[in-house]
Amino acid sequence: MGLRKELDQKDPLAIGQELHRFVGELYPICRSITGNGVRQTLAFIQNKIPLQTFEVPTGTAVFDWTVPKEWNIRDAYIKGPAGKKVVDFQECNLHVLNYSTPVRATMPLSALRPHLFTIPEKPDWIPYRTSYYKEDWGFCLSHNQMLTLEDGDYEVVIDSTLEDGHLTYGEYFLPGRSSDEILISCHACHPSLANDNLSGLAVATFLAQLLSGRDLRYSYRFLFIPGTIGAITWLARNRDTTGRIRHGLVLTCIGDRGRFHYKKSRQGNAEIDRVVDHLLRQHCESPKILEFSPYGYDERQYCSPGFNLAVGCLMRSVWGTFPEYHTSADNLNFIQPMQLAESLSLCAAIFEVLEENRRYRNLSPYCEPQLGRRNLYASTGGGAIEAQINARLWVLNLSDGEHSLLDIAERSGHPFSLIHEAAQTLRESGLLAIVSENTGETTRLEEESQEKTGDSSSDHSCGSSSRS
Amino acid sequence: MGLRKELDQKDPLAIGQELHRFVGELYPICRSITGNGVRQTLAFIQNKIPLQTFEVPTGTAVFDWTVPKEWNIRDAYIKGPAGKKVVDFQECNLHVLNYSTPVRATMPLSALRPHLFTIPEKPDWIPYRTSYYKEDWGFCLSHNQMLTLEDGDYEVVIDSTLEDGHLTYGEYFLPGRSSDEILISCHACHPSLANDNLSGLAVATFLAQLLSGRDLRYSYRFLFIPGTIGAITWLARNRDTTGRIRHGLVLTCIGDRGRFHYKKSRQGNAEIDRVVDHLLRQHCESPKILEFSPYGYDERQYCSPGFNLAVGCLMRSVWGTFPEYHTSADNLNFIQPMQLAESLSLCAAIFEVLEENRRYRNLSPYCEPQLGRRNLYASTGGGAIEAQINARLWVLNLSDGEHSLLDIAERSGHPFSLIHEAAQTLRESGLLAIVSENTGETTRLEEESQEKTGDSSSDHSCGSSSRS
Amino acid sequence: MGLRKELDQKDPLAIGQELHRFVGELYPICRSITGNGVRQTLAFIQNKIPLQTFEVPTGTAVFDWTVPKEWNIRDAYIKGPAGKKVVDFQECNLHVLNYSTPVRATMPLSALRPHLFTIPEKPDWIPYRTSYYKEDWGFCLSHNQMLTLEDGDYEVVIDSTLEDGHLTYGEYFLPGRSSDEILISCHACHPSLANDNLSGLAVATFLAQLLSGRDLRYSYRFLFIPGTIGAITWLARNRDTTGRIRHGLVLTCIGDRGRFHYKKSRQGNAEIDRVVDHLLRQHCESPKILEFSPYGYDERQYCSPGFNLAVGCLMRSVWGTFPEYHTSADNLNFIQPMQLAESLSLCAAIFEVLEENRRYRNLSPYCEPQLGRRNLYASTGGGAIEAQINARLWVLNLSDGEHSLLDIAERSGHPFSLIHEAAQTLRESGLLAIVSENTGETTRLEEESQEKTGDSSSDHSCGSSSRS
Repeated sequence: MGLRKELDQKDPLAIGQELHRFVGELYPICRSITGNGVRQTLAFIQNKIPLQTFEVPTGTAVFDWTVPKEWNIRDAYIKGPAGKKVVDFQECNLHVLNYSTPVRATMPLSALRPHLFTIPEKPDWIPYRTSYYKEDWGFCLSHNQMLTLEDGDYEVVIDSTLEDGHLTYGEYFLPGRSSDEILISCHACHPSLANDNLSGLAVATFLAQLLSGRDLRYSYRFLFIPGTIGAITWLARNRDTTGRIRHGLVLTCIGDRGRFHYKKSRQGNAEIDRVVDHLLRQHCESPKILEFSPYGYDERQYCSPGFNLAVGCLMRSVWGTFPEYHTSADNLNFIQPMQLAESLSLCAAIFEVLEENRRYRNLSPYCEPQLGRRNLYASTGGGAIEAQINARLWVLNLSDGEHSLLDIAERSGHPFSLIHEAAQTLRESGLLAIVSENTGETTRLEEESQEKTGDSSSDHSCGSSSRS
Repeated sequence: MGLRKELDQKDPLAIGQELHRFVGELYPICRSITGNGVRQTLAFIQNKIPLQTFEVPTGTAVFDWTVPKEWNIRDAYIKGPAGKKVVDFQECNLHVLNYSTPVRATMPLSALRPHLFTIPEKPDWIPYRTSYYKEDWGFCLSHNQMLTLEDGDYEVVIDSTLEDGHLTYGEYFLPGRSSDEILISCHACHPSLANDNLSGLAVATFLAQLLSGRDLRYSYRFLFIPGTIGAITWLARNRDTTGRIRHGLVLTCIGDRGRFHYKKSRQGNAEIDRVVDHLLRQHCESPKILEFSPYGYDERQYCSPGFNLAVGCLMRSVWGTFPEYHTSADNLNFIQPMQLAESLSLCAAIFEVLEENRRYRNLSPYCEPQLGRRNLYASTGGGAIEAQINARLWVLNLSDGEHSLLDIAERSGHPFSLIHEAAQTLRESGLLAIVSENTGETTRLEEESQEKTGDSSSDHSCGSSSRS
Repeated sequence: MGLRKELDQKDPLAIGQELHRFVGELYPICRSITGNGVRQTLAFIQNKIPLQTFEVPTGTAVFDWTVPKEWNIRDAYIKGPAGKKVVDFQECNLHVLNYSTPVRATMPLSALRPHLFTIPEKPDWIPYRTSYYKEDWGFCLSHNQMLTLEDGDYEVVIDSTLEDGHLTYGEYFLPGRSSDEILISCHACHPSLANDNLSGLAVATFLAQLLSGRDLRYSYRFLFIPGTIGAITWLARNRDTTGRIRHGLVLTCIGDRGRFHYKKSRQGNAEIDRVVDHLLRQHCESPKILEFSPYGYDERQYCSPGFNLAVGCLMRSVWGTFPEYHTSADNLNFIQPMQLAESLSLCAAIFEVLEENRRYRNLSPYCEPQLGRRNLYASTGGGAIEAQINARLWVLNLSDGEHSLLDIAERSGHPFSLIHEAAQTLRESGLLAIVSENTGETTRLEEESQEKTGDSSSDHSCGSSSRS
């Protein structure tokens, strides 16, 4: 589909700055797992892609869980003995323990203290804390700020509501020729934290923009959901759809300066795992592949044993391992335009490989075909063979209907792009036919347009009828 | 079954001293592959466990072998030209070539010499030598002792008998809920050699004591047998029983200060192999796993191709690799109470893992169950997750009826004990059911007592009817 | 069959000198992919083995290719402005671009230059260049030679013909007891290049001599063919025969001082791959195993996906990696008698392993058989076991009808020869029976002669009826 090539022709800094600007728009919103912060966030995304939003009522049973009460907050502060605001939600929404119950009280510092959270090791940063499933209230502040608090009575106000309402999430479905789907999921529940996960939201939104309007092999489903409960809610409401998900990526923390990390799916050797591994090794500096583990982001839900979907998690720095994680230091300066652009480009490359990773059949499988008379071979004898010709020989040799282009790239050590280009060239020369995934039959290039029509008409109806 | 936990609550030095004391009782006996030495040894063991003894007549055909004549010895010595005993069996039973035919003769030193065995490299040690299947006689002595021998006539006396009799072995069968068996085998044919193999006999005896009276999943069969011919004899007489042996351990040389060595079964990746590997890596310092080879102890017989049982061999120092091996230096000082206790504890841990290594099924396999509302999850968000909770997530994630707890321990990198504890907790919370090995059906905790009754009644009858 | 043992008893230097002498006879001939050079070469080989030659007409379709016109050359030279020959085909046949069309012309140096080929980095060497499939003419000369050419008119003569004729190849088929075949293929199309590939031709010829007249398990097929087009032609004409090829070797560049390289077949773990790997590790200094790739010698054709034969490529130095490759420096001094002899011996060892690599069944599989009473075991107890006895134990332990002798050699770490010797000994002792590859039934030694007769009569007819 040439997605990455198109992207690579643009100025990456300009793209990165657009991504960063979008993050900047979303940054001030106070998000949580429910409430208006999520709705506002989805509205911003709807300015870019025709996202569909869903509202699921409090109390709805979703597998072992229940959709919680909806939380909203208007204001919160602590006034000191001198009547001055010493902690102010308006200055930074991390100041409030996320999901705090409403409070209006005056109390001595000693009574307030158990409700205050700081990071003594990073005395200037405000921590991010939540209490979703145990009703509580509290304030987060910098340690230095706390040290200035004097004894006396404090006025504590949290103007929040925690009431029956809805859980909100957004979904964007892009139909492809096949009803087989690629899932892209990112959590949209953190307040002013840039890398975790506005970086993911921004890259996913731009990816959706890039893909829309294209002729796609796969259907794509983008989810913008609250972490954990959102993924569980979506899975509970779309249990039948999950059977169509062939590959998936959770996108998170992909805007910082760290090297790429990819956490493999529970399956461990799924196509998505191999594709990301291949691209990271070919194109990125010292990437790190992590084995699956059942703790992390929403891959936990997608990879639960009942679903066991081929969903991995793409990150730069890994949650919990960088000091800025879940603090006010995960701000707009922590993420970088060039890194955001590179993450977008990598995702585009991943989809490109998934789209193009087909099996082919060498139509001249007995001995090598004579590439020379087709101008596909260096005509002067001896000397070193070029990578391009070598790639053609590999494609011809392994295209027995069993090996995919990714298999060939892995075995030959050539980049997928070179192998794919070789396959296209050989196909245009009539030496290769594509193998149908369903029937195992081969289709030559000249028969292809015909196939496409028939194929997509039935697939599309199937792909689009899946919405609830 | 909590076997190891119980053991670990006791003072290891006290246990080790008990083991060492028991070795001390057995040490003076002159054992061989037949004869009264074996009978006396088994009698000592019978003071601790209700061992059954078997007597197999000389001449009995056992596969390709024949039970040999019975050997007994009362005295042996060499008197020098001065009429003084220069070598005396009463001082050390290693002095006689084991299985020596009776001799009463006077001969010059030159005629005696071919019958004398020493270790020139270790001039103070007496070697241990045997001649079971070729009739011969001889004396073993220290090299320094031999150097003092002057020319002259020597009176040589070996007051032994080699006559039709019996081969003796001991067997202790502990029935469990299932007729599937765990075999523990140790050779009881070496005279005064502490590590090889009184250490094995002592640890096996104490293990049998520890297990008796417990509610066991597996049946346990302890064999105290002469090496090679004893194992062959037992296998020939119990050929049908071998089909029930699921796991087995040969115990030998496990009292010295060396690090642990485990030699894998011929199968190479049997459950016993994986269990020992896991425990050694988790709990022991620089352990060494050895691939199977067809030379060694009685695993040679259990792993012969006709049986191919999952029997490995647990050692500390490996036969033939330590200088004290098969010499008088393998004495009571060579083995250590703490090492004996540690070997006992490791064996207990091995059995514990085998007993508890079951497959479970997550009863809430779609997404994670909400551990928080069951008080199984840290309630404050953010921060590092504890190993205990991580273990629960691993058990839930991989309990699809396919993965055993050992599989989960291996994949997660957590110790089996932590994974097992997590499984117990989750089962008590109704989140997990055990998978029947036979039917593949799952049983919840509340249904279990019922199952046990039905299960064990039929199993026990089966387990105990197997004796000849 | 004892082939290698017999060979190893001879003086390797004498054998190497014979091989080198034979290369010397073939060296002056101007070979190409067609023409009289090939015919002369095959005639020399026919002095040693009853080679059959085949002539395939120009224009014959062979898969995707067409047999080209036949090329012959009588003379070629360049005369300088002074009327003196400055380049002379009679001095070295590499001087002519192989497959040059006829030329008779006079031209200024500037017009001649594009037809001259040199190696500036190796100014004294003449390159070897070809233009088989694009009609062209040219001269190859040393760079220093070219630097001496002065301006002026040059007389250029290439007295060649490129006309309808034939492609010639030679084939030698040695029937064995089975119709299953071992293929040995070497390219016979290069002019005066000693290592590439007169070394391969000489070794193959001597191997064929060594094998002839022996009682062989496999049938052997030796091909002396032009590279690429020759292999393609042979495969096109013998498509049905290929189904009988069980193992194959392409022999090339095996006379130089380099260490051995073996390039694995496309299958990657075929028996031939494992055999060569085993022998190289056991017997050769720092050998190198190369993964299959679709570029190289005629294994490209044998391993094309339609055939996918178990054919690897044995080399010393690898084409393209040594400076002398495809230059006049690949001459009779570049290859060494001792290296040629060692290559011959290695090939003999490879065939020996393939011939002897059978599966056996331990007829006494329950426990170890008593080797001692058969004099197959050290009779004195204790001490180190010898490799010979250890090999016997390995063979007994793994001879369950599933493991081949090569499997046993690989797992035990013993050389195949030791394992094979152990198997022979055990078989002679009645402890082992051979397993039929077809029926899986076992045959004891005493039944064998009978089997051989029945087996070979049907196989031979089958093996020899395969010729076109």
